[in-house]
This record gives sequence, structure tokens and C-alpha cells, in this order.
Amino acid sequence: MPKQVDHEQRRREIAAALCRLASERGLEGVSLGEVAAEAGVSKGLVQHYFRNKDLMLSYATGYLRERVEQRIAARTADAPAGPRAALRAALLALLPLDPDGRTESLVANAFLFRALKDPAMAERFREGHALLRDAVAGWVEAAYPTGHANPAQEADLLLAVVSGLADAVLLGHHTSEAAVAILDRQLDRLDRAPRET
Amino acid sequence: MPKQVDHEQRRREIAAALCRLASERGLEGVSLGEVAAEAGVSKGLVQHYFRNKDLMLSYATGYLRERVEQRIAARTADAPAGPRAALRAALLALLPLDPDGRTESLVANAFLFRALKDPAMAERFREGHALLRDAVAGWVEAAYPTGHANPAQEADLLLAVVSGLADAVLLGHHTSEAAVAILDRQLDRLDRAPRET
Repeated sequence: MPKQVDHEQRRREIAAALCRLASERGLEGVSLGEVAAEAGVSKGLVQHYFRNKDLMLSYATGYLRERVEQRIAARTADAPAGPRAALRAALLALLPLDPDGRTESLVANAFLFRALKDPAMAERFREGHALLRDAVAGWVEAAYPTGHANPAQEADLLLAVVSGLADAVLLGHHTSEAAVAILDRQLDRLDRAPRET
Repeated sequence: MPKQVDHEQRRREIAAALCRLASERGLEGVSLGEVAAEAGVSKGLVQHYFRNKDLMLSYATGYLRERVEQRIAARTADAPAGPRAALRAALLALLPLDPDGRTESLVANAFLFRALKDPAMAERFREGHALLRDAVAGWVEAAYPTGHANPAQEADLLLAVVSGLADAVLLGHHTSEAAVAILDRQLDRLDRAPRET
């Protein structure tokens, strides 16, 4: 189905253009016309693929999740063997340490406001977060098998740390290196946590 | 100087109106006219106090910092005696656990995009963050005197945790209670960290 693939590629290009704009100034002021200009296509074409901005944003949340999943998969595949390295690589993939990661962190922030007014979008974010939490909990359990009664709680904590560090790096409170050092301190600490009952 | 005080009160009311609007939809789409309407004053009066939106935003960042400092001061004053309770109260004051805290967390998110384009604003945020980090480090040092070679690093980590948890609560990934439990787990853990060299 070569035509089908083409359409999907177009949708992705439009979603990528939306994400670039949103990473610069949030989502509120972004119009279909501006997205079309950024994507280098006509406004009519954007409207052909997305009848309105809500549908475009809905598609873009899926696109964003996919980008983050691909980044995690690539980083964990490149990491040294073993669950500790995989856990660390996955968490590092969530920090804005390169231009793509920076764009994704900014877009995630831009979507926050929209999600607060859009229950369906908020639900998709919750789903995405739950999947990520389960994956991180799996790595925690494999990496620190004797240390943790509740890998899910540890995953919640680690995800809060990387989320907070991501904003701190964006705002210039920490350099990338400092943020990685802070995360590494927390990972080192997992070895020392006794099993809880 | 009763007149002076009045003017300052007016500026605060306008900043509060800006913050309410920003907490609903970010900062980008907010005009001076809308802020005036939200504050229940004329656009001319807003322009009398703030010649343009940038000056209003600049004032609002100071207002926001003051609000957060007052909240921390109030929570730590109400907390049980001792530095551990003060540390916990200060960190809880940074979570969106009540309507005011929720508004402040949202406004801080809204300012993030602006700060990325406005070096002077970014610098004010960095200053505010550095003061907060020093205060938290002071409480860490007092609360866990034998556990931590580097209270500043511990403060960085705790501030990242509360920043990440704040967004998670806003997005509905965690209830307020779950977020507090996650923070408490990390605080409990500070007792177990050996002094590093």
C-alpha cells in the first residue's frame, strides 16, 4: 500500500512541524496556517489530513509518544549489557541532552496546558505515563533485585526526578552534566536501599 | 506613604490577574486588555502601571517568587518543630496540593517558555532557584547532619523530585496523596545515606 505509507509520512511531517512550533512558544497561539507554513505545505493539505486543530493535536500526542519510545529503544539498545545500564539509558533518554530531546521536553511542557482542558488528551498522557512507569519498574526490578519491595514506587520517583531535571536543564538551572550527575547519585543510592516489607 | 502602598497593591492585583489567566492557558495568548478585564480595571490603568507586556511579566515573576516564599514561610512556621519537619513542609509547599499551589505551579510552567526567549527573565528564575536551593540545602544539613557530605546536591535532587511530582499531579498521573508518599519515601531514605567523601 504505497499510497497509505505516503499519507502517514505526510501526517508525521505535519506533526513534526507542529512540535517545532510548540517547542518555541507553546501550543496556544499556533494556527493550522502556521503549521502548514512550517511544514512547507498548503493550509488546504493540512486541513485534508486534520479537519481541525484538535485532531492535529491528538495525532501529535501519539507522534510525540512514539518519538520518546524510539529514543528510549535506541538508547537502551546502545547501552552496555545489563539492566542497570538499560535503566540509566532509558532515564537519560528522557532528559533534554540533545536538540531532539530538548524539542520533545518543550513540546511535552506545551501539551501540559492543553491536557488540563482536554480530558481525552489527559487520558492519553496518563496511558503513556503508565506504560513508561511499568517499563522503568521492570528495569528497576531486574537491576536491583534484592533492594526493592516496590519497583513501581521506585519508578515513580525516578520519573519525577527526570521530569524535574528536564525542566531544570531547559531553564538553565543545571547543565546537562550536572543533571546526569544528580540522576546518577540517585541510581547509586538504589543499591543501598534495604528491602521493605 | 499611603499612596505608594496603594500603587503597589494595584500592581499586585494586576499581576494576580495575569497569573490566573496564565494558569489557564499559558502566557502567549494573554493581552494587556484581557489582564485588565480579569483584574476588573481599565486597559489604560494597566498601561499606566506597566508600559508593555514585558514589564508586566517581569513584575509578575517577582510576584510569583514572593508568593512561593510566603507559602514556604507559612508552611514551615506551621510545621512541627525541628529541621526535618521544616524541610518536609518547605518541599510540600512546592507541590500543587491546594488551589493556590496549583495556580502557582501552572504559572511557573507558563513562564518556562517565556524564560527560554528572555535571558533577563531566565536569570531571575535562576536567582530564585539558587536561593531556594540554598534554603533547602540548609534544612538538609540541619535535618540529616551525619548523612550528607553535600547538602547542595541533595537539595538539587529534592527540588527535581518536587518539580517532577508537581507536573505529575497537574497531569493527573498521581493523586496529591501519592505524590506526598513518593516524596516521603525519598526523605526517609536520606537517613540511610552514608556520608560520602
